[in-house]
Amino acid sequence: MDTRKKIEVCFSPALFKEYRNPQSIAVVVDILRATSAIVTAFMNGVSRIIPVETLQEAEDFKKKGFLVAAERDGLVQPFADFGNSPFNFTKERVKNKQIVYSTTNGTQAIHEAGDCHKVVIGAYLNFSALSDWLISQHRDIIILCAAWKNKFNIEDTLFAGALAESILRQPEFYTICDSALVSIDLYQLAKNNLLAYVDKAAQRNRLRKNNLDDVIEYCHTFDLTSLIPVFEIDHLAALQS
Amino acid sequence: MDTRKKIEVCFSPALFKEYRNPQSIAVVVDILRATSAIVTAFMNGVSRIIPVETLQEAEDFKKKGFLVAAERDGLVQPFADFGNSPFNFTKERVKNKQIVYSTTNGTQAIHEAGDCHKVVIGAYLNFSALSDWLISQHRDIIILCAAWKNKFNIEDTLFAGALAESILRQPEFYTICDSALVSIDLYQLAKNNLLAYVDKAAQRNRLRKNNLDDVIEYCHTFDLTSLIPVFEIDHLAALQS
Repeated sequence: MDTRKKIEVCFSPALFKEYRNPQSIAVVVDILRATSAIVTAFMNGVSRIIPVETLQEAEDFKKKGFLVAAERDGLVQPFADFGNSPFNFTKERVKNKQIVYSTTNGTQAIHEAGDCHKVVIGAYLNFSALSDWLISQHRDIIILCAAWKNKFNIEDTLFAGALAESILRQPEFYTICDSALVSIDLYQLAKNNLLAYVDKAAQRNRLRKNNLDDVIEYCHTFDLTSLIPVFEIDHLAALQS
Repeated sequence: MDTRKKIEVCFSPALFKEYRNPQSIAVVVDILRATSAIVTAFMNGVSRIIPVETLQEAEDFKKKGFLVAAERDGLVQPFADFGNSPFNFTKERVKNKQIVYSTTNGTQAIHEAGDCHKVVIGAYLNFSALSDWLISQHRDIIILCAAWKNKFNIEDTLFAGALAESILRQPEFYTICDSALVSIDLYQLAKNNLLAYVDKAAQRNRLRKNNLDDVIEYCHTFDLTSLIPVFEIDHLAALQS
């Protein structure tokens, strides 16, 4: 019997229903910027993050006194305390606090994956810890790219390729998923100058237009932490290993 | 004013609503095998092809006396005259005939794109004629990959990259679409040995399992015809230039 576990990559939340597998661990990826910001918040001591899909929900939480991070199309919402830049989630602001968080793509993707065995948050910032932990779980893995308004994006795909390649070095994992194979090849193509490749990406240009591109290098930095945020019913918390 | 026209690539019919643009020409691509089979049928003199989405519709047409090609998951349906291999669409069978056609992915994609300015059928078999014609139309272009049950696939993506690259050599076209950029890079990576790259694809293995992989080389042959099938209300006909 083949006991190996499979890795798949899903390029958009709008395709996730084709990949859904309640036995699998879903890794949600939104490199620019939601999942990089979430990992940063945990690095800086946030106690939990409540991802919400709609701005209305975020505003309702704000009225109840919660600290709220909310952006759409890269821009901070007027009612929110701050937006989606990882640099907003400083120790001073977030340590030991709960944050309500709503973004254009990333928070929707977290909810979309909600019926998987587990949902964890992936970023370059926690890359090796995440890869090691996923290998240790010996389960099917689906890497869910948050994409941009359901359209395929380059930066999440490159991360998916890096992570899939890292895990597939273990013989107990395999893939027959075209998206995974292509992500790995793209990462190979880009890895010697990841930022130059990301420079092609549409989101890079959206951020530049709004003077928000200061975070791009930071969001492509490997292994600043070993923390792995995990989704628990209605909030993200740091995984206890 | 920028009068250039844009090229986008859509990796799945399930994502098409994010790309929909009534001003654009949609190119539907299902290299293994629907669009290669459709182009072959026109090469062999079929008068028109009626693409239908459901097997029930196909069977209803059969009862009315139509010649019907219908497959699901690579296998000919019991009520149908033949399936989805381009090699089925011989002169003897199709010349001057109307064919009703239903496949796993390709025919759905044609209907999905139905509200674009025009919908045409793309394959390597009519590559250069299609590229030249698209350039001559000076309109936005969306290349719609039929995918596999809405999942991204390699073989359609490679074709999309080849076509996008060919058109983008003209300065009056541009792209800022991440899917198009990635398709082009993949085609660059694969083009010196396209069949070896396609050998990775999941569909290649599905066909091999059913002994249907005899068509793969044929479906990756450039420029056997200058015919371009175009969708007109409810059927495909050869474009009159």
